[in-house]
Amino acid sequence: MLKLGDIAERLGLEFRGQPETVVRGVAPLTTADAEQLSFVVGKNHLPMVAETQAAALILRDEWVDHWSGPTLLSDDPYLTFARVTQLFDNRPPGTGSVHPTAVVHPSAQLGSAVSIGPHAVLEEGVVIGDGAVIGAGVYLGHQSRIGKGTRIYPNAVIYHDVVVGEDCVIHGNATIGADGFGFAPSKDDGWVKIIQMGGVRLGDRVEIGASTTIDRGALDDTVLEDNVIIDDQVHIGHNVTVGARTGMAACTGIGGSTVIGKDCTLAGMVGVGDHLRIVDNVHVNGQGRVSKSLEEPGLYASGTPIQPYRDWSKNAVRFEQLATLARRVAALEKQLADADPDKEQP
Amino acid sequence: MLKLGDIAERLGLEFRGQPETVVRGVAPLTTADAEQLSFVVGKNHLPMVAETQAAALILRDEWVDHWSGPTLLSDDPYLTFARVTQLFDNRPPGTGSVHPTAVVHPSAQLGSAVSIGPHAVLEEGVVIGDGAVIGAGVYLGHQSRIGKGTRIYPNAVIYHDVVVGEDCVIHGNATIGADGFGFAPSKDDGWVKIIQMGGVRLGDRVEIGASTTIDRGALDDTVLEDNVIIDDQVHIGHNVTVGARTGMAACTGIGGSTVIGKDCTLAGMVGVGDHLRIVDNVHVNGQGRVSKSLEEPGLYASGTPIQPYRDWSKNAVRFEQLATLARRVAALEKQLADADPDKEQP
Amino acid sequence: MLKLGDIAERLGLEFRGQPETVVRGVAPLTTADAEQLSFVVGKNHLPMVAETQAAALILRDEWVDHWSGPTLLSDDPYLTFARVTQLFDNRPPGTGSVHPTAVVHPSAQLGSAVSIGPHAVLEEGVVIGDGAVIGAGVYLGHQSRIGKGTRIYPNAVIYHDVVVGEDCVIHGNATIGADGFGFAPSKDDGWVKIIQMGGVRLGDRVEIGASTTIDRGALDDTVLEDNVIIDDQVHIGHNVTVGARTGMAACTGIGGSTVIGKDCTLAGMVGVGDHLRIVDNVHVNGQGRVSKSLEEPGLYASGTPIQPYRDWSKNAVRFEQLATLARRVAALEKQLADADPDKEQP
Repeated sequence: MLKLGDIAERLGLEFRGQPETVVRGVAPLTTADAEQLSFVVGKNHLPMVAETQAAALILRDEWVDHWSGPTLLSDDPYLTFARVTQLFDNRPPGTGSVHPTAVVHPSAQLGSAVSIGPHAVLEEGVVIGDGAVIGAGVYLGHQSRIGKGTRIYPNAVIYHDVVVGEDCVIHGNATIGADGFGFAPSKDDGWVKIIQMGGVRLGDRVEIGASTTIDRGALDDTVLEDNVIIDDQVHIGHNVTVGARTGMAACTGIGGSTVIGKDCTLAGMVGVGDHLRIVDNVHVNGQGRVSKSLEEPGLYASGTPIQPYRDWSKNAVRFEQLATLARRVAALEKQLADADPDKEQP
Repeated sequence: MLKLGDIAERLGLEFRGQPETVVRGVAPLTTADAEQLSFVVGKNHLPMVAETQAAALILRDEWVDHWSGPTLLSDDPYLTFARVTQLFDNRPPGTGSVHPTAVVHPSAQLGSAVSIGPHAVLEEGVVIGDGAVIGAGVYLGHQSRIGKGTRIYPNAVIYHDVVVGEDCVIHGNATIGADGFGFAPSKDDGWVKIIQMGGVRLGDRVEIGASTTIDRGALDDTVLEDNVIIDDQVHIGHNVTVGARTGMAACTGIGGSTVIGKDCTLAGMVGVGDHLRIVDNVHVNGQGRVSKSLEEPGLYASGTPIQPYRDWSKNAVRFEQLATLARRVAALEKQLADADPDKEQP
Repeated sequence: MLKLGDIAERLGLEFRGQPETVVRGVAPLTTADAEQLSFVVGKNHLPMVAETQAAALILRDEWVDHWSGPTLLSDDPYLTFARVTQLFDNRPPGTGSVHPTAVVHPSAQLGSAVSIGPHAVLEEGVVIGDGAVIGAGVYLGHQSRIGKGTRIYPNAVIYHDVVVGEDCVIHGNATIGADGFGFAPSKDDGWVKIIQMGGVRLGDRVEIGASTTIDRGALDDTVLEDNVIIDDQVHIGHNVTVGARTGMAACTGIGGSTVIGKDCTLAGMVGVGDHLRIVDNVHVNGQGRVSKSLEEPGLYASGTPIQPYRDWSKNAVRFEQLATLARRVAALEKQLADADPDKEQP
């Protein structure tokens, strides 16, 4: 339970109403009860304000006429909502201690107030910063380094020589530092493995989703810069570089050695080929098929819209003949031009 | 080894032949031997009946002329086959006990005959129903609840405040309840994390594939209703609702807050955007790109057919000019109409 | 540190220069220092040779004029590079012993010099070949067999009745042998589970990426032949067969019962339907949508190129009308032919 006045003070916001009023959490306008705070993200949600049971609202100054109750004033209510969720953080905290079932190599260096969960394994040379929370069953390979305040959820696997920055979050069953997919073809021996000798480096405030895989580099490192945010089930190949604040939604995959700029967003299930370059501020829609470098910022897309199968199947078969169709149109244009030589063609 | 007569009785089927005949399992028509039961799913498989070595067949009444051996009569041989496999279940059973290496919080409540595998971890307040089987290395977070008869395979991770119904199956390395992908952009601080304060609720008889990820809700819960079946490597974003009996094949991904109806099927690698609505009885073909709500039941598809690269590349380049091509066709139509003003255009 | 002369001898290569020169590793031309070996893969990299600081180069005979330093001569420098990385293998080696926290069933048979990591679990009847390295937290189900020299990284899950060949690599959080996605629909009971009674068999020198899932067969086995290489996040459905030396890049998914030939390559995020047949030497580009059998070797593709969203949206809407556009073109052709009956149509 927090007092509204305290919330306003901690977030540096102007507050209107009774500051002693207490709330126990945040909820959407439609479901908030009299002990919950709510928020209005955009003008289109203002009509719902009249109906809400919320104890108080986060509002822009220009919207205050719509609401007579306690108000936290914010230029950016969505950002304020995010900061408020952090005040009500309900995640089980770390224990601040090493569980007796954890296997910690004597050479490992642990900062202060580090939590190591049951059955976690820390190999030789591991270094963990102050306040980090290492979940149950997490594996930290030889010489891996985990920064201050970073939280790693159960059963994630961090291979050797992986460096994770401060205040990162790595979710359950994620794998950081597995071998890149590198093999040389040989007539006699089939695929010959190229030992992946590089590592992985994550900056600060990086978030890695559940079951996401980030491969180690072949010779150099795979690098994710500060505040990169990665959803679940994403794959990042060896030697990829991802610029600061770039985000990737679930199921996206990035081929080896590709360089992605800063402040990009890749929506879900985007596929990016290997050895490509994507500049800063590129945004790609869901299932985008990025098979060439994107040298200009902006929004990109590929694929075809979802349709009823009957319609789709008729169109799809025509796609297979599209080059022919274009030639037929060109032939018609020529035929008409020939028939009427005076007339200018479009 | 089971007697054919007993199988018929347990499944409530009419049986023709010697009921004392024993079989040791089920096999396809082509590989079944004289100790195995087989089955005919459709008329097109009847020609293979003459060749089969099977001890007995599951057949529809109208097909019995094709086979003179022992017969289990069924209106739905495929369904009967499924029920027969359950009689021959060869999965290693639970031990019915708690392995001494498991770490079980004293507050955890375990039903009768619960199996807890080696190195499993049960946090504070966990509740497990009778007969549930919790595999080796499974993590069950604070206050999570697992229903009667549910089986969770090794190294799956269940976060705090996740509720799993009865008779569910959760496969290895699945992750239920990791944070949804929620961040607010901030000019000064980049992406600011929104603490994901909701949970996940799975109904009864839900199946979750290996490495599948189902994220917890931001404020409310993510919900999968009874008998939802989910294959491997699927991602379900925060606050999604999936209706009863809906199935999703491998590698499919569902964006946050999307509501999917009952009795839908999404084939493999379908991508569904966020905040969409899919009504009951919608079916989507493989790699479908669902970027808008689907308000009518039926079969949907998107994408283009696979082609030899040479053909595809010629067609694909034309797709990039498709709007232009359409304009050229319209121009031709207009030109012809102008040339022959009496003639009606199509 | 290795002597260049020793490297040449171990790989059976002709060497020019001072054989006592030592190098500590391999690096790309641009970053190699005076203690590192480098290599030239193709003619297009020859201009970088003048600038490199490398101690020595792997070169084709015809390129030696470009470089006056120590040289390892190779017909296939990329393959030689791969073999050299194996000489500098920096992966932490196995311990050759069983960690006291591992839970090993008394019936398990371990070869010589086997390494079993902390918290690994070996169920009844497990057999492990000489020199295999089983990582921390790995689960090996009942009767599973792991071949000589195979390395399984932490937290991978191998279900019961799975057979892994020799010299395989299975990466962290991979799952081999989870249930195939098999259910029979029932009017009264919804989806009825088909117990997946087959197993999985991997040949020798198979590599399986992190978080990859390979399902067990329904009745028969799922099979990957020798030297198949599979990247991260790949899904292979039940009863699939994959021929020798076939490779699959990340995020690819293969539907149940599909048979894939030898020496195929599927690029990233390819989706292959169920019950299909792909012959030997088929190659599919990224995000390929394989919804029918591919009966001829060669390169295939599907999808549409990435475009700026504004252009894409105009083209995509036309795709939805493509059948109509084709009919309009046919109508124009007919109209012109009717207007000029003497003229032959294309």
